[in-house]
Order: sequence, then C-alpha cells, then structure tokens
Amino acid sequence: MKAGFIGLGNMGQAMARNLIKAGHELTVYNRTRSRAHELAGEGAVVAASVAEACAPGVVMTMLADDIAVEEATFGKERILGALPAGGVHVSCSTISIALARRLAESHIHRGQEFVAAPVFGRPLAAAVAKLVVVAAGPSGALERCRPLFEAIGYQLFVLGSEAAAATALKLGGNFLIASMLEALGEAFALMRKSGVSPAQFLEIVNGLLFKSPVYENYGKIVLEEKFQPAGFTMRLGLKDVRLILAAGEGAGVPLPLASLIRDHLISGIARGHGELDWSAVSKLIAADAGL
Amino acid sequence: MKAGFIGLGNMGQAMARNLIKAGHELTVYNRTRSRAHELAGEGAVVAASVAEACAPGVVMTMLADDIAVEEATFGKERILGALPAGGVHVSCSTISIALARRLAESHIHRGQEFVAAPVFGRPLAAAVAKLVVVAAGPSGALERCRPLFEAIGYQLFVLGSEAAAATALKLGGNFLIASMLEALGEAFALMRKSGVSPAQFLEIVNGLLFKSPVYENYGKIVLEEKFQPAGFTMRLGLKDVRLILAAGEGAGVPLPLASLIRDHLISGIARGHGELDWSAVSKLIAADAGL
Amino acid sequence: MKAGFIGLGNMGQAMARNLIKAGHELTVYNRTRSRAHELAGEGAVVAASVAEACAPGVVMTMLADDIAVEEATFGKERILGALPAGGVHVSCSTISIALARRLAESHIHRGQEFVAAPVFGRPLAAAVAKLVVVAAGPSGALERCRPLFEAIGYQLFVLGSEAAAATALKLGGNFLIASMLEALGEAFALMRKSGVSPAQFLEIVNGLLFKSPVYENYGKIVLEEKFQPAGFTMRLGLKDVRLILAAGEGAGVPLPLASLIRDHLISGIARGHGELDWSAVSKLIAADAGL
Amino acid sequence: MKAGFIGLGNMGQAMARNLIKAGHELTVYNRTRSRAHELAGEGAVVAASVAEACAPGVVMTMLADDIAVEEATFGKERILGALPAGGVHVSCSTISIALARRLAESHIHRGQEFVAAPVFGRPLAAAVAKLVVVAAGPSGALERCRPLFEAIGYQLFVLGSEAAAATALKLGGNFLIASMLEALGEAFALMRKSGVSPAQFLEIVNGLLFKSPVYENYGKIVLEEKFQPAGFTMRLGLKDVRLILAAGEGAGVPLPLASLIRDHLISGIARGHGELDWSAVSKLIAADAGL
Repeated sequence: MKAGFIGLGNMGQAMARNLIKAGHELTVYNRTRSRAHELAGEGAVVAASVAEACAPGVVMTMLADDIAVEEATFGKERILGALPAGGVHVSCSTISIALARRLAESHIHRGQEFVAAPVFGRPLAAAVAKLVVVAAGPSGALERCRPLFEAIGYQLFVLGSEAAAATALKLGGNFLIASMLEALGEAFALMRKSGVSPAQFLEIVNGLLFKSPVYENYGKIVLEEKFQPAGFTMRLGLKDVRLILAAGEGAGVPLPLASLIRDHLISGIARGHGELDWSAVSKLIAADAGL
Repeated sequence: MKAGFIGLGNMGQAMARNLIKAGHELTVYNRTRSRAHELAGEGAVVAASVAEACAPGVVMTMLADDIAVEEATFGKERILGALPAGGVHVSCSTISIALARRLAESHIHRGQEFVAAPVFGRPLAAAVAKLVVVAAGPSGALERCRPLFEAIGYQLFVLGSEAAAATALKLGGNFLIASMLEALGEAFALMRKSGVSPAQFLEIVNGLLFKSPVYENYGKIVLEEKFQPAGFTMRLGLKDVRLILAAGEGAGVPLPLASLIRDHLISGIARGHGELDWSAVSKLIAADAGL
Repeated sequence: MKAGFIGLGNMGQAMARNLIKAGHELTVYNRTRSRAHELAGEGAVVAASVAEACAPGVVMTMLADDIAVEEATFGKERILGALPAGGVHVSCSTISIALARRLAESHIHRGQEFVAAPVFGRPLAAAVAKLVVVAAGPSGALERCRPLFEAIGYQLFVLGSEAAAATALKLGGNFLIASMLEALGEAFALMRKSGVSPAQFLEIVNGLLFKSPVYENYGKIVLEEKFQPAGFTMRLGLKDVRLILAAGEGAGVPLPLASLIRDHLISGIARGHGELDWSAVSKLIAADAGL
Repeated sequence: MKAGFIGLGNMGQAMARNLIKAGHELTVYNRTRSRAHELAGEGAVVAASVAEACAPGVVMTMLADDIAVEEATFGKERILGALPAGGVHVSCSTISIALARRLAESHIHRGQEFVAAPVFGRPLAAAVAKLVVVAAGPSGALERCRPLFEAIGYQLFVLGSEAAAATALKLGGNFLIASMLEALGEAFALMRKSGVSPAQFLEIVNGLLFKSPVYENYGKIVLEEKFQPAGFTMRLGLKDVRLILAAGEGAGVPLPLASLIRDHLISGIARGHGELDWSAVSKLIAADAGL
C-alpha cells in the first residue's frame, strides 16, 4: 500500500526499509535529507516536506521525542494540516501519555484518525523485522494499517480504541526493562565483590529461573561491556524514564524504582556516558562500589 | 544413603519427604517434635536431639535464619560437636555470607566439611522435587552429597570449593526476584491508573518480551492477589533482603534497589501483612497510589 | 511609586496589601475579579486586563506556576506586549529555571527588563511583611524596585544580574525545607514507635543542637497536626519539587532525596491529602510505619 | 567523686581529661595502654584491666561500637562481673537500642544500675566540655552521676528511667544531622551547576531562614572541604546509620532517607574515603553530578 514515513533515525530507517521490502510504496521524509536519499536507491520516493509525506493518506512517524512529534504534527503545513480527511497518522515513537491524548483529540477534530503503535525492540531487531508492535486506535484505522505493522514486526498486539493505552503499555514495558537493568547492575557488582563470576551468576539465575531472552541479551551486553554502538542510548533512556515518571505523576502513582533509575541515568550522562547504551547504568553502579 | 535432616518447616518437610521417597535412610529432627513424627510414618527415624541427627555422618539443615543455624551448630552437643570427623554439614538455608564463611572455617577446624547448598523454589516446587540446588564446598563432599541433591531438585549447579559463593549467588538470585516484584508492583499500579488492564499488560510484556516463567507465575499471584497461603512470607523476604544488604555492606556495594525493597517490606509488616506472600509488596505500592 | 500587581492568591493578596499600606499606588489584576475588588477598598486601582496592570511601567507577578506566568506574559495583549519600553517585570513566583531564562531573554529582546524576585515565607509571614526576598536581574531595575521589596519583606538579598540565579537559589532553599520535613517525619515516626515523645525529641534536638526557628515552627505544625489551613499545600509542594528535579536534570545533577520527597508528595495527593500543608508528608510516613 | 573510665579514643580522652580537670578521681582504662598513660600525668590512675576500672563503683564507657561495649561488659572479669552491687555503668557510646535494652536488663539482674548517656558533639566540643548529654536510667543513678555529666557537657537533658529512650533519641538526632548533610550535599551540587555560589546559598538560606549553627558549621566544613582531620568519620557514620536502620526495622518504621544516606556512605567507603569526615558525602554527590 501507499504510505508516508517520517523520521529516519536508527530505528526509523530500518523500519522504512522493511516496509519497502514488503512491497509498500513509501514516501519518506527526514529533516536531515541524506538519510532519506539512502532509501531512494531502494525504491522510496523522497518527500521534500512533511506535507508531501502525508499525501498517501496514511503517514507513519518514528521520531525522537515529544517535541519532534509536536513539530511534525502541529506547526504550519504539518501533518494535521496536510493529511487528507479520513487519513491516518500512525505514531510509532515513544511519547508522553499527555501527547498521545492530545494527538488523538486533534486528529479527530480534523476528521482524521490517530493510531499509537509504539514498538518494542532495539535497532538490530528493527533491521530484521522482529519488532513487537502494540497498537491502539479506532478499529478501522488499525485494520487499514495492519499490512504496515506486519512488515515491520513479527508480533502485533491490538490493545483497543484508546491510543493512549498503547503508549502507557509501552512505557510500562520499558520501565520493566529499565528495572531489570538496574537490578542486574546491582547484582553483578555484588557478585564481583563477593567472589562470584557475574557470567556464572547470570547463567545459573537466568538459565534455571528466569529463562528470559531479555535477561540473557542485556546480561551479555553488560558482561561484555558492549555499550557502543548503543542500541538505545542513556540519553534516550532518560527521556523514557521521564515520560514514565510524568505518567505516574499524572495518574497519581509514585514510582520510586523509576526515580532511582532516573537518578542513575542523570549521573551517567553527567559523567559523560550519555551516548552509551542505557545498560551502562551498570558501569555507574560498579563505580559507586569502587570497582 | 544414610543422612540426618534438621529443620522441618514448609520447605524442609517437603525436601525430607522427597529424600525418603528416593530411598535414603533419613534421621529427622525438628524442635517442634510433631512435625518430625509426621515423617515417621513415611519411614524416617525420629531423632531426639540434634546430636542424634548427626550420627549418620552427613547432616542437612534447612532452618529459618542465621540464629537458628547458629544454635543448631555452635551450642553444646550441636552439629559441630556431634558430627564425626570426616562428616559433612550441608546447609540448605539462606544465610548470611558472614555465617557461611564462619561455618566453613569452624568445620574445617574440626576435621569436618561444610557445603552450602541453598535452593531456589517455593514450597510447591519443593513438594514435587523441582528445586534448583546451587552447591559449593570441598569437591569430595559435593560428590558424596550428590544423591541427596538429586532427590530434592531437578537441577544442580556446582559452583566451586568456596561455600560462601553459593550463598552469595543465592542472595543475588533472590535479589533479582525481589526486584522483579517491586517493578511489577509499580508497573501494575501505573497500568491500573492509566486505563490498561494489568493482566493484559503482563500477557503482552511477558508473552512477547521477557518470556519468563518467573514473571508469569509471580505476575499471576499478584493479579489474583493469592497472597495466602504464602509461598514465602514478607517476614522471610525481609530477612533475605537484610542478608543481601549486609552482603553489600560487607563487600562495599551500595544496593539502592535492595534498600527500596527493604523499606516496602518493613512497611508491609508494620501494616500487618507480615504473613502474606512477599509478592504482596504490590498491595503497598497500590495503597501508596491511593488504590 | 506606581506599580502593577498580577496574581492575588493567598500570598499575592497579602503582598499587594502591604505595598498599598507602604504608600505605593497599586493597579491590581486577578483572573478571579472578586479578589481584586477586596483591595479596591484599601486604595488599589482594579485593572480590567493584564495589559492595564502593565501601564505603570513596573509590574509584579505572583502566580501559581509556570503555565500561569507564561499565559500572563506571552499571549496576546499580555505583559510582554503591554509593558512600555524600559519597563520592568518583577516575577515573585517560584518558577522553573528554564522559564526564568526565557523570560529574561524575551524581555531584553523587547527593550524591557526582567527581575526574578522569589520570596521565602508562608502566607502568615507575607501578611506581616516578613518575607525574605531574593532578587536578581539588571542592577538598574533592581534599584528601581527596591522600595517594592522593602514593602513586602524584612530582608532583601540581591544576588547579581542573572535572574535565573535567584530562581535556582529559591528552589535550593525550598529543597532544604522539604528535606527537613522528610527527615522530621521519619524521625518522629521512629521516636513514636521507640517510646520517645516526638515533642521532647524536637525540644532537645532543636533546642540544644539545631536551634533553628524553621525546625521549631514546622516541627510544631507536624506535632499538632495543624495541616489546615495549609501555609503551602502538598500540591504546591509537588510543583516545587518538580521544578527542583527539572533543574537537576537540566544541570546534570541527580537529586535522590528530592526524588524521595516527590514520591511521598505524589502518594499524599493520591491518598486525598493534596490540600493539606506539605508538612503532612509526616502523616504518610507515619502510615507507612503502621501508625 | 571517684569513677572509672573505659575507652580513650578521640572523644573519650577529651571527656576523661575534663573529668579530671573538674576534680574527679579517675581510674582510666584503654586497650591500647599508651593512651591511658597520657592521662596519668594529669592525675588519672591507670587501670591494668577493665575490672580495676570498675572498682570505684561508677564506671563510664565511651567505646566505638556495640561489639566493643559487649566485650567490655559481658566477658569474663568484665564490667558485669567486676562492678560492685549497687554500682552504676554509664554508657556514653552510641549503641543499638537492642544492646541498650540488654545492658539495662543484665545490670538489674546483677543488682547494678545502667544509665545510657549518649552525647552530641564532635571531638572539638568534647575538648572544651561543650557536649550535650542526654541521659536516661534509674533516677538515683542519674543523680549520682550528675557531677560527671556536668564535667563533660554544658547541657544535660534527663529523659526518664528507660535507658533505651536516650539511645533512641541520640540515634534520631544523628539521623537529622545525617539528613542535613545529604540535603546540603545535593543542594550545593545543584547550586554549583546552576551558577550560584554554594557559599552565598548557605549564607542566605541559613542566615535568613534556618539560622542554625549546625547548618553553618557543617556547611563551612563542606564548602572548605575540611574533611580531615575528621570529627566523625564516614566509617563511624555508617555504623550509626546502621543502628538507625536497625532501630527502624526493630520498631517497624521504614526510613527511606536513612537508606539513601547508608548507600552514599557505603559508596564513600568503597571509594576510599572511609576516614574522611562523614560530611564528605557531599564529595560523592558532586562526583555523581560529574563535578
């Protein structure tokens, strides 16, 4: 099908590539134009503006943060103005619950539809179309976009008609991952200073108990200190934890573990590790233990 | 083989029963005698004292805490005095690293051997011989006890000759579980107040990402609020977290996440939930969110 | 002197009243008009709009939060547009560092001057002109406003030309007060459950050691549970802690104690105490201890 | 009056010296004998054993921790055995609530009396007899010891007949001081990275608001980084925070702020700062902020 795609960062470019491979006719737009041109050779049409990318009537956005999504949507000649009536805006970015609600309302107001479809997975998973897509929005719009979701992910979960619910679920999932990173970091530091090899600890505790590929993959990154290239930087991690805490504050839920993670991420960035993978919180925890 | 078994609580009795079923000739001792007599009908010899339970030359202890293990070991006519030279003391209790070291030294001093063999698993797993056993100690002693480990668990991991390492690993593993409970509790509260069903959240996030039976099992306990009968009470949870923090303090490792869990467990007990399963920290977290 | 005054809440009205008493010719504006009319009888001119309140060339704002200050300043026919060239905007509200910087830049751009003059003190102190004023901004503007500061406070501290510095100092001071409330709350709970009267504890520890009127005053409020009428509500407290944490995040400073206070305030509001004085965090802490 | 004095560390020696100056006939004992001999020239009798120091019928102890007090009291030929019937043991050390209770019971059992009389103040204050003494115990014993308290402190507060109450109050007071150090450390880091001089911040916030000599003194130590010689080392600070947390756990009071301080002190010691003054937590906090 025909679709626009805005935002060609690490994740976005991989997703766009898979959409093209799956046979979709993609019109791509990126502020830094060169990243769009890379896809031209693979069959994408390069749009000169956000508005052009909206012409196909369905436009998918994969942008860095709330501000980027707001700029693409609300300004002059942006998505809200350029998308035809009946068109669909599919936002795959991890954004705030407040913005998800505002987008849903604004698009309805314009006779358009809004789908929140945040994705779980790191760039490597995006590259091989192995993302998990959690989508929520009007059912007709969800059905219309299903071929797009199938092209970028291997699993799709449809959550209901309230777009913000998909956003909340994504934030909650990221919170569980961040919590695991904090826990692994503290446990590894304790093992190292107690004479137990962290690798053996992970092998036993995950191998026999948790049996979780997420623990295994992130555990290995931490053990091998493969924090670069980052799958998801500390800086982006802090952004997500900020959204989680804002969601908690908005809903009246104290999240002390999220607060703790936030403090570690701020410290990591302050100490110059902002571009490392967010699993490098383990480095800070080790440093705090004098390692 | 012949062996003594001291400590017939929820876990201990299930383990002793499986040892008998596997054909071992067990001499059992428990301070509250009635629990020992229950096993007499299944073939166990009931010892009148700790010393009698040491006569077989191998004695396994499964006791509540450091104090109970110290009392069984160090007092007059206790394990240290009653175990024959060349005998083995196998401690399955979760104890402090400091005590594990002291036990190892004390037994060596007496010409005996000490094996730390803490187990992962709740009473239900103990009942069906599905514990994970992590053992460390002198290699000869480990080999000698292997048939016992096979009778109580379905997986055995031998960690090396330093008994305290098995204790540290067990504490680290319990810390990861406690961290997961804290994270799930906070995430569920956030989902509930954000209009997402926690059950659906768990299904998606664990089903598609973590894929961990530990998340699934504990997640269900929390969702169904099946905190009684407790697999592992808040009170015991607090004991373990205290041991984890003491290990951290001893080794010079700050463990802020463990501190946070400790505060929640103290609060839970102070509010009268000490006998609920430790996954009931989720109740406190929900209460803190006004739920 | 002639001045405008915008924002007649608990604090603002007391401050405006003292400005009038000191002989200043005040033009007052408040969104809810009735609060302005109360001052008309005392000699104030009631403005029909924000713009009218700017006519005197110096306008003081005492508003609830960033959003209120932004609305009063940036919209159409607001302060930025209505204040004459060479005019001064004095902001007494506790706002974010980011907004203080933006206000300073925006006013300079318009040929106006911006002074940040946050105040320390609760409504009772405002009523008797006993506020502490910390002001920063261009030196000429500071001199010009000095008579106004003298009318509302008994102590003035001039911090330099960078308006945001006064904001940072105010946030830091509020953080110290909030920290004291958290510490007192925890200490009182411990004393109560250890058989020591919190009143005696406060008398001794503050009387002999801290010797601080802030400890004494807040300590008494907590001991007597005089949380209503609130000098400063939990809801406002949470706003300030949010600003403190945002300042920390912006500057790269983890503030774990501020995070802890934030979690307690969110919980307090979620449990229905949002309109109590923020010293009521002690209530939550006591509840967490089962009191 | 005649009295024994056991424990001549930094604090103890200064206190003993003031007792001698005030005319008391002191028999002093210290494990490292040389420190006792320094006092011989000033008029003290040097005891060869703990038992000898108990002969006068009143013995004051100022020892490092629970273990040192237990060793001096409970072993063979120690205080409990050597003190005459009707004798008084005055413990000035900061000990656990559990130990204070055990000491009170043990001495009653022997027909002796126990007074807990912990002191507030650093070695410099001890040297000039400016300690604050908080005493609790049987009223007769308290009266008997009053001349001793007057010789070491400028203020005495008698708390009642329950010795453990004095201990709890002392722990609560130290907790407030530690909380202040944490708060100042975080605030100073925020000020430094926000362009406000921490010295000016302290001058204004303490000068106009808190007006507390404790804030001023400790604030100066932190600003001038005079962490050596330590008035009270991080290592001792950690010991006290451990006692505070144990008191909280024993009484069922979560103390998240104390947990936070504990983590910072463990980190400080792990990073090699164990012998610095405990106000050096500010160094860690600054390092966490990349300073």
